[in-house]
Amino acid sequence: MSYQALSAASLPAYLASVPALRERFSDLGDLEVAEVGDGNLNLVFLVTQRGRPEQTLVLKQALPYLRCVGESWPLTRHRMDIEVRALQVFGALCPQHVPEVFHASSEMSLVAMRRLGEHIVLRHGLIAGTVYPKLADHLSTYLARTLFFTSDLHLPPEAKKQAVAAAANTELCKITEDLVFTHPYDDSPSNAYPPGLPRAAIERIQRNAGLRAAVAEMKYLFMTAAEARLHGDLHTGSVMVNGDETWVIDPEFSFYGPMGFDTGAMLANLLMAWLAAEPRQRAAGNDPATYQAWLLDTVCAVWEGFEAKFLALWRAQEAQGQGFIGKDLDGDSAEAFRAAFMRRLFADTLGFAACKIMRRIVGLAKVADIAGIADEAARTQAEVRALRLAEHLLLNRRDIASMDGVRAALRGVCSASLSS
Amino acid sequence: MSYQALSAASLPAYLASVPALRERFSDLGDLEVAEVGDGNLNLVFLVTQRGRPEQTLVLKQALPYLRCVGESWPLTRHRMDIEVRALQVFGALCPQHVPEVFHASSEMSLVAMRRLGEHIVLRHGLIAGTVYPKLADHLSTYLARTLFFTSDLHLPPEAKKQAVAAAANTELCKITEDLVFTHPYDDSPSNAYPPGLPRAAIERIQRNAGLRAAVAEMKYLFMTAAEARLHGDLHTGSVMVNGDETWVIDPEFSFYGPMGFDTGAMLANLLMAWLAAEPRQRAAGNDPATYQAWLLDTVCAVWEGFEAKFLALWRAQEAQGQGFIGKDLDGDSAEAFRAAFMRRLFADTLGFAACKIMRRIVGLAKVADIAGIADEAARTQAEVRALRLAEHLLLNRRDIASMDGVRAALRGVCSASLSS
Repeated sequence: MSYQALSAASLPAYLASVPALRERFSDLGDLEVAEVGDGNLNLVFLVTQRGRPEQTLVLKQALPYLRCVGESWPLTRHRMDIEVRALQVFGALCPQHVPEVFHASSEMSLVAMRRLGEHIVLRHGLIAGTVYPKLADHLSTYLARTLFFTSDLHLPPEAKKQAVAAAANTELCKITEDLVFTHPYDDSPSNAYPPGLPRAAIERIQRNAGLRAAVAEMKYLFMTAAEARLHGDLHTGSVMVNGDETWVIDPEFSFYGPMGFDTGAMLANLLMAWLAAEPRQRAAGNDPATYQAWLLDTVCAVWEGFEAKFLALWRAQEAQGQGFIGKDLDGDSAEAFRAAFMRRLFADTLGFAACKIMRRIVGLAKVADIAGIADEAARTQAEVRALRLAEHLLLNRRDIASMDGVRAALRGVCSASLSS
Repeated sequence: MSYQALSAASLPAYLASVPALRERFSDLGDLEVAEVGDGNLNLVFLVTQRGRPEQTLVLKQALPYLRCVGESWPLTRHRMDIEVRALQVFGALCPQHVPEVFHASSEMSLVAMRRLGEHIVLRHGLIAGTVYPKLADHLSTYLARTLFFTSDLHLPPEAKKQAVAAAANTELCKITEDLVFTHPYDDSPSNAYPPGLPRAAIERIQRNAGLRAAVAEMKYLFMTAAEARLHGDLHTGSVMVNGDETWVIDPEFSFYGPMGFDTGAMLANLLMAWLAAEPRQRAAGNDPATYQAWLLDTVCAVWEGFEAKFLALWRAQEAQGQGFIGKDLDGDSAEAFRAAFMRRLFADTLGFAACKIMRRIVGLAKVADIAGIADEAARTQAEVRALRLAEHLLLNRRDIASMDGVRAALRGVCSASLSS
């Protein structure tokens, strides 16, 4: 079938034409179909058999245009191929945290997959102050498995290099290169400065040669370090949760890049949720300390769980045969490399987390956690703290030895009286 | 024409079939043809019109097999495509140091190019104690232009990513991954230990967890850091020289990798020439200090010239439009990034140089500079000094601020009484 945008009316006929989809419903003539996408990039249909809620799926179709002027049709359609391939790769490595793909069509630029009907977007859950006891365990498992098994630490060199080539995603990488690593720092017209944020706070990051050099180092790593297949946009809006399950969705930015970009993105978004929790919990009449304590424990447990699981996968692989370094003649060398590797990866993680935080405060795209704080003074305080935290993490990324250093940095920015 | 290995007898008919080659000679019936390759990997023909020495070329053809058992025919033939493409890319960027390609055929796995009839292999010239006053200037120009213009600092992201994909060279990278970064350190049967080298000197690098972790970090960078199109095997045997000219040949290992691998390879080979010069000059009845002083000045001038020219290209590009970091609002940020970039690249350079030195002492492939020293005691001393130098440069690569630190390291290994 050549490409055509589907509608609620045309969807049943399309489902009927695909055996893998047709067989999921008992009566295609009596479906409930709702289009819930925002309509700018993708159509998103929720499809359910009336009266049989277990017969359900979500179908996502890329629209053949982007808001950005000048993006051509073929590039736009390629976006969905990348998302589908990433869902398949990550799903094979981590089926408990990546929704199953039922059917994908490159021609139609669509994917049909498991519907997560009893889950909400993690960011919404964190804004609401919900505790997810299994979240850190789930996210650290997802990160460890997807990053380890797609890297040179696991794959033979030939398979890894083929995987890198197959995961090329130039167009969406360019968006990140601009919106995360360039525009927020050079006073670009695309930036959206929060109304209450002092100009001095903005200039503090835009006119700081050391900070901008460090941002450029992170950008250069993003563009050159083909370590693992990344999700590429792993914020708390790309995660669906309930009390029992955690699902990572929307990997359309996936490509081979530096591992710290995924781990850093998740840390950044959880740290911003922590900063937002104080005014939000207070406004809700709660002592913020309770929810913030859980959130901070979760941030730390995501990194520490990731590190432990990643190292366990690595050691298990090595126990089955020759490792990355070759034979470990003195018995200490493989562990010495692992220690150096994780120190470097933690520094990368903090550096990328910092860039992700700064772009969310002064760049084009915001996070609702902070941008949605109703009280302007409280919102501005969270924004200034976020920028100070990012500055500290970025400039000290190679000297912060563990998450204790991140806890200390949070205490620092919250105890200081920050006007900008 | 389908593939067939050429011979001196069949060559004239092949030349006649290619207009671009035919027109280079006045009489194809009266050529002087000599096959000078070693016959394991490539045939190399020198072709000259009898009595007209200016009508000459070199023709290099890949043989459809490798010594290594198991390499398949198509991969082997692909080697020549890579070399041709690299010669073309580097030749366009630096025509004064890369021989002109007259004709290439993927089907025949051959390339015909300018013959460097009045030049010798740089390694042979250094072994003979010849001074090349222009060498450092030429090599630093070659390195600066090839590395800068193929990097993200110059190319638009889309062009860079396409270039990375087009330069894939999995098979030859695997040789480097094994022979440079793995086998020398894990007591592989492929190693060739010099007869006089004490076992303790070998175990000093093979049973040193810190050193092996650092080697693994360099290997990981080699496999993941797609910074620029590299020569990939830039030792002094890949350079042809005379008093006026310098030509870089044999880029069959070319791929997108870390810049420091090329700069480090050249530094390593010049440093080994320096270590070899002491016994060689002494055996020739000369004061070694004279030639060593020129060699060490040359090592330093290669790096320092490279750094100055690379930075000049970068600044010139930035002066024409927006730079890598975006707009430089305070006027200091772009230079701060450049300083951080060069510090990191110098550390990479020293780390890769160290790996290149160690593999040449204990690994499979030797350098004639050191391996050809006739006196065993003198040869062993040079080998032990080379290993100590490599150890020092690798472990201190991030703390050595300039070539002064390399000079100091050389003084250190030469003044110490090293038994292993």
